[in-house]
Amino acid sequence: MNFNIPRGTQDILPGQSEKWQYIEQKAHDLCRRYNYKEIRTPMFEMTELFARGVGDTTDIVQKEMYTFEDRGGRSLTLRPEGTASTVRSYVENKMHGWVYQPVKLYYVGPMFRYERPQSGRMRQFVQFGVEAMGSDDPAIDAEVIALAMDFYKELGLTNLKLVINSLGDKESRTNHREALIKHFEPRITEFCQDCQKRLEKNPLRILDCKIDREHELMDSAPSILEYLNEASKDYFNSVKGYLSDMDIPYEVDATLVRGLDYYNNTAFEIMIEGKGFGAITTLSGGGRYNGLVEEIGGPVTPGIGFALSIERLLMALDAQGIELPVQEGLDAYLIVLGEEPKKRAPKILHDLRSHGVVVDSDYLDKKMKAQMKAADRMNAAYALILGEDELAEGNILVKTLATGDQETVPFDQISAFIEQRKGE
Amino acid sequence: MNFNIPRGTQDILPGQSEKWQYIEQKAHDLCRRYNYKEIRTPMFEMTELFARGVGDTTDIVQKEMYTFEDRGGRSLTLRPEGTASTVRSYVENKMHGWVYQPVKLYYVGPMFRYERPQSGRMRQFVQFGVEAMGSDDPAIDAEVIALAMDFYKELGLTNLKLVINSLGDKESRTNHREALIKHFEPRITEFCQDCQKRLEKNPLRILDCKIDREHELMDSAPSILEYLNEASKDYFNSVKGYLSDMDIPYEVDATLVRGLDYYNNTAFEIMIEGKGFGAITTLSGGGRYNGLVEEIGGPVTPGIGFALSIERLLMALDAQGIELPVQEGLDAYLIVLGEEPKKRAPKILHDLRSHGVVVDSDYLDKKMKAQMKAADRMNAAYALILGEDELAEGNILVKTLATGDQETVPFDQISAFIEQRKGE
Repeated sequence: MNFNIPRGTQDILPGQSEKWQYIEQKAHDLCRRYNYKEIRTPMFEMTELFARGVGDTTDIVQKEMYTFEDRGGRSLTLRPEGTASTVRSYVENKMHGWVYQPVKLYYVGPMFRYERPQSGRMRQFVQFGVEAMGSDDPAIDAEVIALAMDFYKELGLTNLKLVINSLGDKESRTNHREALIKHFEPRITEFCQDCQKRLEKNPLRILDCKIDREHELMDSAPSILEYLNEASKDYFNSVKGYLSDMDIPYEVDATLVRGLDYYNNTAFEIMIEGKGFGAITTLSGGGRYNGLVEEIGGPVTPGIGFALSIERLLMALDAQGIELPVQEGLDAYLIVLGEEPKKRAPKILHDLRSHGVVVDSDYLDKKMKAQMKAADRMNAAYALILGEDELAEGNILVKTLATGDQETVPFDQISAFIEQRKGE
Repeated sequence: MNFNIPRGTQDILPGQSEKWQYIEQKAHDLCRRYNYKEIRTPMFEMTELFARGVGDTTDIVQKEMYTFEDRGGRSLTLRPEGTASTVRSYVENKMHGWVYQPVKLYYVGPMFRYERPQSGRMRQFVQFGVEAMGSDDPAIDAEVIALAMDFYKELGLTNLKLVINSLGDKESRTNHREALIKHFEPRITEFCQDCQKRLEKNPLRILDCKIDREHELMDSAPSILEYLNEASKDYFNSVKGYLSDMDIPYEVDATLVRGLDYYNNTAFEIMIEGKGFGAITTLSGGGRYNGLVEEIGGPVTPGIGFALSIERLLMALDAQGIELPVQEGLDAYLIVLGEEPKKRAPKILHDLRSHGVVVDSDYLDKKMKAQMKAADRMNAAYALILGEDELAEGNILVKTLATGDQETVPFDQISAFIEQRKGE
């Protein structure tokens, strides 16, 4: 009988998993410096949490969801993204009442979308995201953007491009919306069915349409930036000013609309240019969502966040030929010659490991030569050779594999010997 | 509208998530020393992978599974445990051909069982497990047990109890099985329906029955240990000898049967005694499964592993009053007084964070006093005070919160100042 991995998912195997650990550790470290705290929500939620929205964007998401009934008849859905779960937890745990405000959270974990599998798009993929809730200060918009940029930069990526836009506050959006309707309405029958529906529901989404992108009304459509009121303009200027202060270059792109209704003011995407991605690819996106907490049943609470895919990040690192400095190789490999030395191996290994030494040995009764080969293959710094003579004398022969130098070291000094050499 | 977390699941919130990170890091560190490499398999598998077994144990597991159809009509199941997925990956990726042998793997991640939620039993829970495949050396059985014990010990747990048993090789098991049938058959009608079925399918499981535990035939049932052939006895003695060499005390319990058909030779459980758990509770279990890789479509390959629940571990740590040494608190909290200093904050924060300083600030336009309170509450080592005067002079007033000492430090020397103090 043969069992295969489900389509669109992957195993992360040794050789790759070290990179994942390194990247996650970077996320933990960076978030700690920025004082964002980790939250872990369940892999699934009640379906209503993700199906609450209206509008075509949400429809698409719903078509891609893994929805199922549990044995108690509840409709559950594997989480397609992290923000809704985080906000659900914010509301359920009454975080608006916590003493630390704003509440600054991050998550790293699997998300699930039933999409056509293709390069960089898996049905299970991992997102790192942050959410800052409770502050409407443009400084925190800049902070969230800086955190995302720092994450990529500290991993070594170059050719990053930050694109920002403002979607304005409610008043600005309403005025812009009216202008868009006025602009498209007379000729809306020239647009696709979806765009015709979008005209009333969310005309902003027309600008995102893949089908009608070449229509002449697209370029001449009124820009949100022309409709920002004074408060929204000031807000956007503050965010831009802070980014400049932090030496983070950006481009303003008035067509960057993140189509969900709850977005407002700041929207941003981080792209990467260069080979391996065609011309340019989006690595992550985020924005301000002052309406979302309320939509999920909490008090009116401003929020901002971003999410990024670790799979895409890994592709970008590969495309730029960046080797992460992962720990590989052993400190030592124990080679045993003869029956009594072999019997002594588990104790020696255990002592060394208890003292922090990364060490392995043979469990297949291999000959000396094959054991030496294993030590080499596993990239051990030292071969620890234990034969009958050494055992009788309470010593181990320590061979430095890089130089071939050999020294005899008593059992109880091996770990100190290795630690000292590692420090040199 | 109100959205609640699904029954039987939990959010891991700030204050708790740091403990999870610490525990996972311990698993990573320990496995690195033991040279086990991480594998990450998908959250779900084709249902057949978990539904392949026969016997009542497997039936129970199937009743508890989250099984659903994806939009392509495939039956998928959220993984109820980690071994089957790991072995599926071993077979699919032809790991028996890898140059590093045995293949030593570990995983840390969520598992899912639709059980009645109760203390310590969640519908989504996290397991840490290891699997060593490709060696039938008793030294590796001892290694796997030592790794599990070290994990608990290095986290500070005491009162641990290791219980081991041997289920013997195939011959020993067959002989024991016949003896069990002979023992129970004449009076099997006195047993429950399940046990009557077990008699032919897997009489060993009768010994585990919760209903018939008091039946007089239970205590007098033939012990597997009396039926071990010479090879199985030697194997068991080697494992026990290695454990003694490593100063790991154990008890042999002949009634420890892990009922799945593919188990053989070594079986073990780690229990903890003392308050918070009634008398005694099992923290983890494992054993040797030489038939499993074959059952999942691979070549005949010996294997051994264990799995443990992080939720139970946390309960045990709580019960023993053990505080994990998690990183909390800030290096510094930036306090800004006035409009211009506030505008300067994002740049200062960014510079400090780029230099590794854990720092936060106010995003709510709070007054001086409230900002000082926040610095205290967030357990900052230093308050960095920036007013109009300091800004004009390019300095920050650094207040050591523990002592109240104050010093004036130029902008570009703050991170060095804090780093130096941290090192003291």
